Amino acid sequence: MKVFVIGATGRVGQDLITALTQAGHTVTAGVHTPSKFKQGDLATPVAFDLTAAPATMATILTGYDAVYFVAGSRGRDLLQVEEFGAIKSMQAAEQAGVKRYVMLSSLFATQPEKWAGITSLASLADYNVAKFVADNWLMRNTQLDYTIIQPGTLTETPATGRVTLGVTDGGQNAIPDVAAVLAAVLEQHNTFGQVITMHAGDTPVAEAVANWSQATK
Amino acid sequence: MKVFVIGATGRVGQDLITALTQAGHTVTAGVHTPSKFKQGDLATPVAFDLTAAPATMATILTGYDAVYFVAGSRGRDLLQVEEFGAIKSMQAAEQAGVKRYVMLSSLFATQPEKWAGITSLASLADYNVAKFVADNWLMRNTQLDYTIIQPGTLTETPATGRVTLGVTDGGQNAIPDVAAVLAAVLEQHNTFGQVITMHAGDTPVAEAVANWSQATK
Repeated sequence: MKVFVIGATGRVGQDLITALTQAGHTVTAGVHTPSKFKQGDLATPVAFDLTAAPATMATILTGYDAVYFVAGSRGRDLLQVEEFGAIKSMQAAEQAGVKRYVMLSSLFATQPEKWAGITSLASLADYNVAKFVADNWLMRNTQLDYTIIQPGTLTETPATGRVTLGVTDGGQNAIPDVAAVLAAVLEQHNTFGQVITMHAGDTPVAEAVANWSQATK
Repeated sequence: MKVFVIGATGRVGQDLITALTQAGHTVTAGVHTPSKFKQGDLATPVAFDLTAAPATMATILTGYDAVYFVAGSRGRDLLQVEEFGAIKSMQAAEQAGVKRYVMLSSLFATQPEKWAGITSLASLADYNVAKFVADNWLMRNTQLDYTIIQPGTLTETPATGRVTLGVTDGGQNAIPDVAAVLAAVLEQHNTFGQVITMHAGDTPVAEAVANWSQATK
């Protein structure tokens, strides 16, 4: 598939580029500053401005089969990046005729009643709201074939290749494992229209994704 | 009507309390700190915490005929107040069986394509996004009988009693005139499900509201 990754220079984005190209996809890296992209052997960098209008984004996204949103501002610009940037990219995907949209979200972003009870979430109040808004827009206000991946705390640790999906408690995730799940769901129709929580676990990624069946909406 | 005003100590909130009581309504003032409420002769203050859960808010809102949202953080806590606080108050209103919901928004909050062209809006990028999100949640994700009022720049100037509704350009609004419009729409069914832009103008408020007929959705 021809895949466009928004936020390709981020911690998850870089591993996602690797995982998608290993799976045989042709990847374009949507980045703020193309000259800073370090994986030119794997993907073509293209400038993608999250403060742009949807119509401008749609011009760039035209012709792709799928869009990933893995951009993040690390808390510095939640309203314009994680939230409105994401919303506009959804509108742009629809305008461009891109049907498949995969969102990197955060654990229980769509279940605010759980935020207070999980230590790692209680300290992320504003971030949780931004992801709550973006995820809900994707679920409620678009016709996209979405998958929303909600991992717990991201750690800069080596891939384990194993995860648990559909978790009900907090947990940690090696960043390459999150990237592997994001890549694995791309063509898995059983993940379309689904919100999938995850953290470290015992099931190989491909098996966990192939067996996903829990309707969480 | 029994009316609950969220954000009653704000600049618009205080004038709204006055306008609603003058119109004969029984008003409860939802405020952060009841002891700071200065209009005890007009309305009963009740603590209302915008960081609370919807179920907690719903307990407070039960038994009212209408909710106004006129709270603002002056840019200090847009995600928790203008945005998520507002969303939760909508969920709470629905849980409490309150059907009527009037939102104080901001000029063209639901028309991002206009933000860049109007000087007073271009400098409010994050605020615009927060109001865009809250307004869209009200319009798309609730069954409330809403009216969204979108004034331009608020000025601390005396009431003129006259406005223009359905504007297409930027402009200023005396705060008591905005409060008068908010109060005037309460029982006007022609404003239900409507987004109404406004600024200073020549039409008496009651006449402008009674004659509102533009479907803007």
